[in-house]
Amino acid sequence: MADIRFPVERLQTFIQAAFAAQGVPGEHARTAALRMIESDLRGMGAHGILRLPPYSRRIREGGYNLNPRIKVTRETPVSALVDGDNGLGQVVMTFVAGLAIKKARESGMCWVGTHHDNHAGCGGVYASLPLKHDMIAMYSTVANANHMAPWNGVDRLLSTNPLAIAIPAGEEPAVVLDIATTVVSYGRIKLAAQRGETMPAGWMIDPKGEPLTDPNRSDEGFLLPIGGYKGYGLNFILGALAGVMNGAAFGSAVIDFNKDFKSTTNTGHLYFVMRPDLFRDLKAFKEEMDFRIREIRNSTPMEGKGPILLPGELEHRSMKEVREKGVPINETLLKQLRELAASLKLADRLEG
Amino acid sequence: MADIRFPVERLQTFIQAAFAAQGVPGEHARTAALRMIESDLRGMGAHGILRLPPYSRRIREGGYNLNPRIKVTRETPVSALVDGDNGLGQVVMTFVAGLAIKKARESGMCWVGTHHDNHAGCGGVYASLPLKHDMIAMYSTVANANHMAPWNGVDRLLSTNPLAIAIPAGEEPAVVLDIATTVVSYGRIKLAAQRGETMPAGWMIDPKGEPLTDPNRSDEGFLLPIGGYKGYGLNFILGALAGVMNGAAFGSAVIDFNKDFKSTTNTGHLYFVMRPDLFRDLKAFKEEMDFRIREIRNSTPMEGKGPILLPGELEHRSMKEVREKGVPINETLLKQLRELAASLKLADRLEG
Repeated sequence: MADIRFPVERLQTFIQAAFAAQGVPGEHARTAALRMIESDLRGMGAHGILRLPPYSRRIREGGYNLNPRIKVTRETPVSALVDGDNGLGQVVMTFVAGLAIKKARESGMCWVGTHHDNHAGCGGVYASLPLKHDMIAMYSTVANANHMAPWNGVDRLLSTNPLAIAIPAGEEPAVVLDIATTVVSYGRIKLAAQRGETMPAGWMIDPKGEPLTDPNRSDEGFLLPIGGYKGYGLNFILGALAGVMNGAAFGSAVIDFNKDFKSTTNTGHLYFVMRPDLFRDLKAFKEEMDFRIREIRNSTPMEGKGPILLPGELEHRSMKEVREKGVPINETLLKQLRELAASLKLADRLEG
Repeated sequence: MADIRFPVERLQTFIQAAFAAQGVPGEHARTAALRMIESDLRGMGAHGILRLPPYSRRIREGGYNLNPRIKVTRETPVSALVDGDNGLGQVVMTFVAGLAIKKARESGMCWVGTHHDNHAGCGGVYASLPLKHDMIAMYSTVANANHMAPWNGVDRLLSTNPLAIAIPAGEEPAVVLDIATTVVSYGRIKLAAQRGETMPAGWMIDPKGEPLTDPNRSDEGFLLPIGGYKGYGLNFILGALAGVMNGAAFGSAVIDFNKDFKSTTNTGHLYFVMRPDLFRDLKAFKEEMDFRIREIRNSTPMEGKGPILLPGELEHRSMKEVREKGVPINETLLKQLRELAASLKLADRLEG
């Protein structure tokens, strides 16, 4: 069955209503719905409404604190440690972004770390929040399931630790990098299994180091880092900065949130915002960003390849398309959403 | 012929004397020699004394300003833009590291950008300088030769833009990531050519996108980024932050310093230093770094593989070995160094 497209506003309203019906305070429900639908708009469906069923299960099983007191527990003019009090990650990270933007406006830059936080979804969504303030942002987190081993090892001690960095431009869309430090995300593996696809060599290996190509056997293997030992190293560094430095989970302390819906995840994030006009006149900076973007976009494509894209360009195009055509919902997800809607007596909100 | 090992101190003294004999002021010669020999100590020979002949040629051809006035031209308590006045990159970046550490001590963190700077060598050397002050550091630069095309493209607009990040630990060696955003450096390709080796698929591609495996044909092809489009994106982002944001060269503005020894390179660097105790008690942070490092090092290796290493561990081991056994110098380099020594009447300083 082909995906069915649902209007953006209807899904956003539905997510908000579903959170509220499960006891999430109104403003928090609104914020979480907004951040999730922004993922769908960017074409990052793996972090959008797809997450509503597992988040709802975590609510039911008591894994979240629905009335968190989000607190700044350490603070300087350029930094903060935020205790998420086990609230929804989207709510905590929206608070974090607001705080970091405010401090960066006053002091030039700001680094905020979180602990006692939760999965917040798409890194590119958060990295993009300071763009309208003409600021640069960087986001990372210790991802919530260990599917990777240390380089040359077989123990699952590392996750997909993503990195997102957004840089404003002038007339051109901002450049937004949003990558896992693994070759593919675990969500992509699950999708291959659903579709009955074989995985190419280079996505996963088995415990003997041989390519693992059957996605149904993914539990037996390990995701591969980008660039081999280089991506492994970057993954560890991001884990140390987003996890260890904030007193948040990393390594063997990570809870697999796909299997355990009760335990507190103690997720850590890092979030850094900086004003480029610390270094250069803003107008000149944005004009040269445009120039370099165009120089690359208009460069010669390989025969039979192209177009040449900048980081974030696909997401930028997706936003227009999804707003016009709606969010694509696959059969499996639609069934889950309908069940959730029925149980919460919100069927009319989903179906419109 | 096997590499010949030269004592560290003798080479350091020789580099310093060679710079001084070519008109570099005494203190600058001392600093540049120290940074270069630190690369050799880390086993990063591509950025060590190997660079003395090409740097010397650049001096002879007028590509450097040997008496630079290194200036801070924009400044806040947490940032600085440094104009390197076309001085030796090692000298400029040593000034930058000192400035960043001082400001981070006072303000918690500091980001310094440079322009009118030059190639500075091994990123891990600079990222490691704040470690003794219990600070975290990040380093990147727009590398000085474009050997990469945009993803799906064939125009040489990107270089190997490296990323180095250092994080202190307690009893364990610090974790120091030091990677190019390409699968291999161009220096590694040149080494393969010297050795008559074939390159594995995945290092370079030709203009049709096919694997290029003959290192003697490297001029026809392009280095591949780590993780495909992901590494391409990270490479662009680092170029924008180290280049565009500082008003330094990026994209088509990059001078190939292997071919042009006269033109000003206007190299840009980024350098960020932060105190981890903004977020967590330093002792607790360092203890958990040790714990996570050991958890990974002591995890189960793949059959026939191992040992499991942390980022920077090879460099840490190298330092002890090179200090004891000396810096390995290959035949080609030795010939170049002897010619240089003879021309500067410093043969006795090299041969000891």
